[in-house]
Amino acid sequence: MDFRGVSLIAGRETARAGAEFRAINPATGSAIDPPFFSATEADVDRAVLAAQEAFLVWRKRNAHDRARLLRAIADGLDAALPGLVARAQQETALPEARLQGETKRTSGQCRLFADVIEEGSWVGARIDTALPDRKPLPRPDIRSMLQPLGPIAVFGASNFPLAYSVAGGDTASALAAGNSVVVKAHPAHPGTGELVARIIVEAVRSTGAPEGVFSFLYDQGFAVGQALVQHPLIQAVGLTGSRNGGRALMDLAAQRKEPIPCFAEMGSTNPVFLLPGALRKNGNQIAAGLFGSFTLGAGQFCTKPGMVFVPEQQETTPLVDELRRLTGASTPFNLLTPGIAANYTRSLQSRSENSGLSMQQASSSGGTCTVSAALFETQIGAFLDHPEWSQEVFGPTSMVIRYQQREAMIRAAEELEGHLTASVWGTDEDLAEYADLIAILERKAGRLIFNGFPTGLEVSDAIIHGGPYPACSDSRFTAVGSRAIVRFARPVCYQGFPDTSLPDDLRNANPLGILRMINGNTTREPVTAG
Amino acid sequence: MDFRGVSLIAGRETARAGAEFRAINPATGSAIDPPFFSATEADVDRAVLAAQEAFLVWRKRNAHDRARLLRAIADGLDAALPGLVARAQQETALPEARLQGETKRTSGQCRLFADVIEEGSWVGARIDTALPDRKPLPRPDIRSMLQPLGPIAVFGASNFPLAYSVAGGDTASALAAGNSVVVKAHPAHPGTGELVARIIVEAVRSTGAPEGVFSFLYDQGFAVGQALVQHPLIQAVGLTGSRNGGRALMDLAAQRKEPIPCFAEMGSTNPVFLLPGALRKNGNQIAAGLFGSFTLGAGQFCTKPGMVFVPEQQETTPLVDELRRLTGASTPFNLLTPGIAANYTRSLQSRSENSGLSMQQASSSGGTCTVSAALFETQIGAFLDHPEWSQEVFGPTSMVIRYQQREAMIRAAEELEGHLTASVWGTDEDLAEYADLIAILERKAGRLIFNGFPTGLEVSDAIIHGGPYPACSDSRFTAVGSRAIVRFARPVCYQGFPDTSLPDDLRNANPLGILRMINGNTTREPVTAG
Repeated sequence: MDFRGVSLIAGRETARAGAEFRAINPATGSAIDPPFFSATEADVDRAVLAAQEAFLVWRKRNAHDRARLLRAIADGLDAALPGLVARAQQETALPEARLQGETKRTSGQCRLFADVIEEGSWVGARIDTALPDRKPLPRPDIRSMLQPLGPIAVFGASNFPLAYSVAGGDTASALAAGNSVVVKAHPAHPGTGELVARIIVEAVRSTGAPEGVFSFLYDQGFAVGQALVQHPLIQAVGLTGSRNGGRALMDLAAQRKEPIPCFAEMGSTNPVFLLPGALRKNGNQIAAGLFGSFTLGAGQFCTKPGMVFVPEQQETTPLVDELRRLTGASTPFNLLTPGIAANYTRSLQSRSENSGLSMQQASSSGGTCTVSAALFETQIGAFLDHPEWSQEVFGPTSMVIRYQQREAMIRAAEELEGHLTASVWGTDEDLAEYADLIAILERKAGRLIFNGFPTGLEVSDAIIHGGPYPACSDSRFTAVGSRAIVRFARPVCYQGFPDTSLPDDLRNANPLGILRMINGNTTREPVTAG
Repeated sequence: MDFRGVSLIAGRETARAGAEFRAINPATGSAIDPPFFSATEADVDRAVLAAQEAFLVWRKRNAHDRARLLRAIADGLDAALPGLVARAQQETALPEARLQGETKRTSGQCRLFADVIEEGSWVGARIDTALPDRKPLPRPDIRSMLQPLGPIAVFGASNFPLAYSVAGGDTASALAAGNSVVVKAHPAHPGTGELVARIIVEAVRSTGAPEGVFSFLYDQGFAVGQALVQHPLIQAVGLTGSRNGGRALMDLAAQRKEPIPCFAEMGSTNPVFLLPGALRKNGNQIAAGLFGSFTLGAGQFCTKPGMVFVPEQQETTPLVDELRRLTGASTPFNLLTPGIAANYTRSLQSRSENSGLSMQQASSSGGTCTVSAALFETQIGAFLDHPEWSQEVFGPTSMVIRYQQREAMIRAAEELEGHLTASVWGTDEDLAEYADLIAILERKAGRLIFNGFPTGLEVSDAIIHGGPYPACSDSRFTAVGSRAIVRFARPVCYQGFPDTSLPDDLRNANPLGILRMINGNTTREPVTAG
């Protein structure tokens, strides 16, 4: 692989001006050649100016042109899969099968958004035809539809080197809606980033998109990201990251002279509630599934179940014993970066010093990123006294919280902060009996799962990957699935315009054949002369 | 009229504990009896706790129950119309016909949102059915729909004592979605506010809604509003206000431990572009319409046209002469409050000291709220040198900006900040020739108007009353029209739930008969067993 190691602005390489850094192989802890070079603040400005110039062209390209770019990116990703997976494996130590799946998910997301915009109804077109004879005043013709926002800043995620990084869901949905994109690459996988960025640049060229529609900036530190979010021409921000990182960017976006939306998905602890009937019915199956879920991807999913509420009953001890056994017998895990590993180790250390928490941990040895799984156990009284135990610990760990009283569990549910998901295992009878729990969880999470685990997110029309703060900056949007596109679009209304001057989406004849609300009725029919 | 002068928390009157204040009659400048009393911070806490308690019940009430409350409020407003208009006239000096129309618009908005939720498709239900045989992994059943956020803080607007105050569009849309509401009354029309609040309290009682679903707080100053936005249980904010006031609340909402959405519609200057063909065709009609639009409601609409770009051509001088004549001959206007009048007078004074601006103003005499209309004129060169001239001046004034060069006008359009509206007068040929202008205005405004003026906003499905900052805090939403309801709702996703445990909106049989997206197809059909 021949890496250039520099940022790409509107398809052109930058100079090797900024600070030098290298990726680290989490399996060995050693740096990988060649070096990469941080962008400068001048690069940020050039990238955003190019993005603005390109936006003026791109926003007027029709959906088929935009879809062509997304499909070319998807094809490029698929064609490059072996090389992408090989480099990503070096940079992340994630298993090959996972990275293959993630690459396919990434190209799949590009094609999903291509399909969404070619189908076209996502713009939510609405038409209220004129009522010239209405009393006391005539009604003018009023039509509206979603249109793109402008240049969008996208931040690569450490834990999704493909699906939520350079060509990930934020980039794909932003481009699909007609925005331009400036990506700040995650420094933990710069080589994977460069490979993907080159695929996008090539797709931009081969499909005739304006070159500034995509730029790609490196930074080992924070200056580039901060300058990007603060640039006056940037119109929105999309990221998947930590709570601290996400909140810092939210605050920068809100403090601008012109505040902009910052969509930050910041992870969560994803509570799991095991109800009595489910425990009786299949406690052991749950133990294996739960262990698999909290250690999947070395526990580095935003949806990792980190809190498990279990009632005290006959089946509880064998279930917890089995979780302990699986944890103790597990082989070491490599976390994504030395920083993540250090945080994990520090969090475990801090929790293990609490008298109210017991810990089962496997032994580990290896590089600076190598850790072992850990299972914490506590009683609900101690848990309620320690709100800090409900914070996310990124890595292969979870906590079992045992309770005697249903009321204490309900109280713990009521005290939950916002989460991406909440899972409930139960029988249909449990579900009826615990309707109060479900009603609480609807207010606490973006996605409720029944008899399943939260990892293994489906990318679909109905999926929601979001939730109340701090899981997400704005619970009204989702990071994943076809609905994610509306994060980067705003409605524009046309009053009294002649048919020939309207966007195709709003013209009488409905040349795009999309679903529209016409005088309150949703239809694909044309507007008939009033 | 028998006023109690105190806040109402969950239907109960508070003590006369806070600072005393009175409404002022803008026509006379004198205070109106009786006094009103500001709420305390303890009142804020009680109101929000009651709102949270009520929310837990209200969110589970079906759409017909919620619609019944909205219709009872609407009926109450209609029945009270004469008394409401009489008191509002004293407190605002707005014309009787305007206040009658505004009262009907307010009850109409309540009925609009009742219709929206009874029709039911607004929840955007999506269903992806399970694919148990899919390889490599089965797909679970995934369903999602919009649900309410929680207690919402609504701020009454000075310039819409009914339609954007106590029972205005923010309150109606928030209640419709299943939220509870705490209103901070605008202190300029406390009596109107009390009358409307009592109508809502009575409607809550008569329809069996939980009493805490609505509370109503007075404050002469800012403490109550600030405490409300900062209260941990408040989940979103809705307001129509000034840029300074709106931004202050946006900042408070963003700085919370748990940031919340603050939807602020902050007004704008609403540029008007008169293109050459239109000037030739009907310059005089435009002059009369423009004068009527910028003086409507004494120029106190968020959509008031405050900037008019006119090319230098034969018809320009008679058009401007006519505008000058209409302005000079106009009778005095009463602004809503002494503060608004003082700001208006100060702004005019400041502008009149600029050598690049000429001013035509009628003479005025009257109370502290009485002012006269003013027309400013300038050349585009001076305008481009003075970005501060494009700021909104609340009151009956506008500015004519004359240009020789098309390029200068395009540059001025490109330098516009965000506006609620942008209007273009032209022939069909003008529209074709100035497509570049339209493309710019699409990025600058929420609503584009062709051959019309921006005042006189239609409340409908397709309308957008919003726009890029600083017109609005978040251009992705609208304050007016049926789309406004989504400001106060978030999607919640259910994975793997049995049919009987799902909300009605998502059940297989589609008992509500709503439009849903099922496996990508939008339909009212039930889900057929896969």
